[in-house]
Amino acid sequence: MPAETMDELVSLAKRRGFIFPGSDLYGGLQGTYDYGPLGVELKNNLKAAWWRANVYERDDMEGLDSSILTHRLVLRYSGHEATFSDPLIDNRISKKRYRLDHLLKEQKPGVAAAVAQALGVTEAENLSALVAAIMAEPERAAEAMKAAQVVDPADGAPGDWTPPRPFNMMFKTTIGPVADEDSYGYLRPETAQGIFVNFKNVLDSTARRLPFGIAQIGKAFRNEITPRNFIFRVREFEQMEIEFFVRPGTDEEWHQRWLEARLTWWEAQGLPRQQIHVLDVPKEDLAHYSKRTFDLMYNYPTLGFEEIEGIANRSDYDLGSHTKGQAELDLQARVMENPDSTARLAVQDEQTKKWFVPFVIEPSAGVDRGVLAVLSQAYTKERLESGEERIVLKFKPHLAPIKVAVIPLAKNKEEITGYAKDLKRMLQGLGLGRVLYEDTGNIGKAYRRHDEVGTPFCVTVDYDTIGKSQDGSTRLQDTVTVRDRDTMQQERVAVRELAAYLQERLR
Amino acid sequence: MPAETMDELVSLAKRRGFIFPGSDLYGGLQGTYDYGPLGVELKNNLKAAWWRANVYERDDMEGLDSSILTHRLVLRYSGHEATFSDPLIDNRISKKRYRLDHLLKEQKPGVAAAVAQALGVTEAENLSALVAAIMAEPERAAEAMKAAQVVDPADGAPGDWTPPRPFNMMFKTTIGPVADEDSYGYLRPETAQGIFVNFKNVLDSTARRLPFGIAQIGKAFRNEITPRNFIFRVREFEQMEIEFFVRPGTDEEWHQRWLEARLTWWEAQGLPRQQIHVLDVPKEDLAHYSKRTFDLMYNYPTLGFEEIEGIANRSDYDLGSHTKGQAELDLQARVMENPDSTARLAVQDEQTKKWFVPFVIEPSAGVDRGVLAVLSQAYTKERLESGEERIVLKFKPHLAPIKVAVIPLAKNKEEITGYAKDLKRMLQGLGLGRVLYEDTGNIGKAYRRHDEVGTPFCVTVDYDTIGKSQDGSTRLQDTVTVRDRDTMQQERVAVRELAAYLQERLR
Repeated sequence: MPAETMDELVSLAKRRGFIFPGSDLYGGLQGTYDYGPLGVELKNNLKAAWWRANVYERDDMEGLDSSILTHRLVLRYSGHEATFSDPLIDNRISKKRYRLDHLLKEQKPGVAAAVAQALGVTEAENLSALVAAIMAEPERAAEAMKAAQVVDPADGAPGDWTPPRPFNMMFKTTIGPVADEDSYGYLRPETAQGIFVNFKNVLDSTARRLPFGIAQIGKAFRNEITPRNFIFRVREFEQMEIEFFVRPGTDEEWHQRWLEARLTWWEAQGLPRQQIHVLDVPKEDLAHYSKRTFDLMYNYPTLGFEEIEGIANRSDYDLGSHTKGQAELDLQARVMENPDSTARLAVQDEQTKKWFVPFVIEPSAGVDRGVLAVLSQAYTKERLESGEERIVLKFKPHLAPIKVAVIPLAKNKEEITGYAKDLKRMLQGLGLGRVLYEDTGNIGKAYRRHDEVGTPFCVTVDYDTIGKSQDGSTRLQDTVTVRDRDTMQQERVAVRELAAYLQERLR
Repeated sequence: MPAETMDELVSLAKRRGFIFPGSDLYGGLQGTYDYGPLGVELKNNLKAAWWRANVYERDDMEGLDSSILTHRLVLRYSGHEATFSDPLIDNRISKKRYRLDHLLKEQKPGVAAAVAQALGVTEAENLSALVAAIMAEPERAAEAMKAAQVVDPADGAPGDWTPPRPFNMMFKTTIGPVADEDSYGYLRPETAQGIFVNFKNVLDSTARRLPFGIAQIGKAFRNEITPRNFIFRVREFEQMEIEFFVRPGTDEEWHQRWLEARLTWWEAQGLPRQQIHVLDVPKEDLAHYSKRTFDLMYNYPTLGFEEIEGIANRSDYDLGSHTKGQAELDLQARVMENPDSTARLAVQDEQTKKWFVPFVIEPSAGVDRGVLAVLSQAYTKERLESGEERIVLKFKPHLAPIKVAVIPLAKNKEEITGYAKDLKRMLQGLGLGRVLYEDTGNIGKAYRRHDEVGTPFCVTVDYDTIGKSQDGSTRLQDTVTVRDRDTMQQERVAVRELAAYLQERLR
């Protein structure tokens, strides 16, 4: 039973050190979040699982880690300078600013239809068509919106609306000591472009042939107008992106294969298939570069089904946009003319010797959205026999921030704490992930706390372990109590068998 | 024998896919680099080794991953808005711009001394004192520089110098849809501030007591005026920082302990102690927050001894700067008054119940500088018996980008390639890191290539392996040839013993 509301996740995340609001100490910086002691482990574990599955366990993938600061020409030819924008509109009365589509969505029934009618848009229920029509005639649209009495959601009164204008969502910054028109760059809005512009560097240094992919994990930045829904829509986020290069004609088959591969992977992270809807994005909603796109929509608490990953067939748009010698390459996508590129991003057909530009399949997943989904899915409230309620995060073991907590039963007894510390060191050495030495409270509280952060096993060192049972017996010497997070069962395990016991269960 | 010149590292790094210049396809973006397929593994391995040693293997550390976009108040109270700047100066004739200290260093003997004399600075050889004097009287200094005939390094002619002015090195960007004076933030210039402003969040969610630390790995950004020396001085870089919080009075002892711990760690990454000088930074060169700082200076090729890590005793400056209620906290450091902070960053003495601000020991290492040092130290040119020269990267096994290459001797023989692929999968499953299935050339070339990228072991699957020896014997069935990178010795190893063989040697 996953979480029911976003609020309970936000609250747990802060209380237990998963996720804090960014720049919290000064009232917060909207759209930024900091991952705390447990969040950083969860996030790193998710990223490592992705890297393992997509780079290590395949024989057709290379990794990459490109820079965040990006040359403006990269983002000009990618199309981002021209088209990576949201339509913004201001109300002259309230001085408030809105995203046009959000504003229209918040109107009473009939209002958007009236605007549509005024502009000659027939399908008023198709919001993207309406937005496109408005942006094509912004002056006329502003009049129509006033006439239709579009209200300001802040006060409910009809607004005096400016003509809407596109607002580019890329963060811009001056690079170098001189602030002139040539000295700016962007924070990348996606990691993908770093892959495309390194296509030839990777080919030249690895001797790869089609089909093969390049995988990257890293931060990306979008100046969202209204960041919201916790870590779902933020201004700074992390992506796990693959650009998989294939021969044109095999792209549709590879697109399907990647859809399957990605669903399987998310399932292995604990998200059941029935919690993910595959949206075959309708033609009219496709990005200009996309031949076809599948959106994986996870069923988030409060939000409902929202995108956790997009898997796009980007045709030859990207390499075609960034290559030199476009005219000789028989491109299928429509691209901007590029006189600036310094390299041919194409491969040679071994038989015909003809150069061609590969198609690209792009499985692009959000790390933060993945963390949120995994956290939500793991979140479980259980009523115990005692009548008490417990919250437990039922993470897959490989994702759990802490794998094992080693707890000395007596905090001030050197024989016991020393034994527990040695045991922690031994278990840490197994390379399973983080093992915590935990001496901060009584055993019941420790169990409850580790349930709430999803630690699969608690190992307790007590008087029996050190051969000093109350009854004088040494029968349980060098054994410990192992407590299972999900079943809450406790088992006495010999220390010499503990490594194997845990390794088997934490795989 | 480490690398002799930076150039040979740059060349190898690009050729073999370790590191490429950023935005290379469009002529490059100065001060940015992209890590290629092998570079990303090397860098990730170094980061993982640091995290393991500092977070997992200690019992007094928590991890963190805070955002890059940072509220301007964080960087105001940290002191960065006021002081994180370099002095810049322009030549009105050539329109060139220089960092003042760099300009002075490039003058003929006597020139800087003449400027010093004009300004009444007695110790002319102390460049930082001279720069301070110039910045205190920029107008007068500009006249003195003209009089002393300070030349422009670009053309050797005396310049018409503007008064120098401080240039803040932080990247600024507009956050949110409205570009007004309140809507900017910074890309963090160091990861440290993200730790300080989360001090209370971490305390509240973990129940830590002094002494304990918070560790973070992440990108930081500095608008260097003249980025240079490959990945040594760049505008986008990665840091591995620890802020270790201690009771005042124990700070000097902890400072020494951390110095030892960090030297030991770098040694475990393959950097011998004699290659690292410890600089006890002279009082007059200390940053304003520092009580004492040790700089670890690695002996880089071409550059000589340069900083790879700084270990500073930052006193109570940082938490004291960001805390609310400064007046009641008896701070030892001089801090800016802070009416904006929303939390008390202090701990309570258990006996006296008095609140106090912990001192901070900060071991702050550069990831990229670490990668460069490890790469340089591993770089070895050897003359073989055949007279040929080989280049081999003698990485410590845990840092090697590829742990094992599995090579089928025949590329088109399904029995052999299938066997090799199965073997690759089995070895990959051991969790040692990246294992590569390698079928791109003849065996001699493959060995040479894997020497150049530092792969500790090559495993070859041949006709003997599949029980089809030329002599008809099946004596060597299910054995493979294992070739050692450093000794170049080849050994025949039974496949059933291979996992143990490699695990033992790759630890």
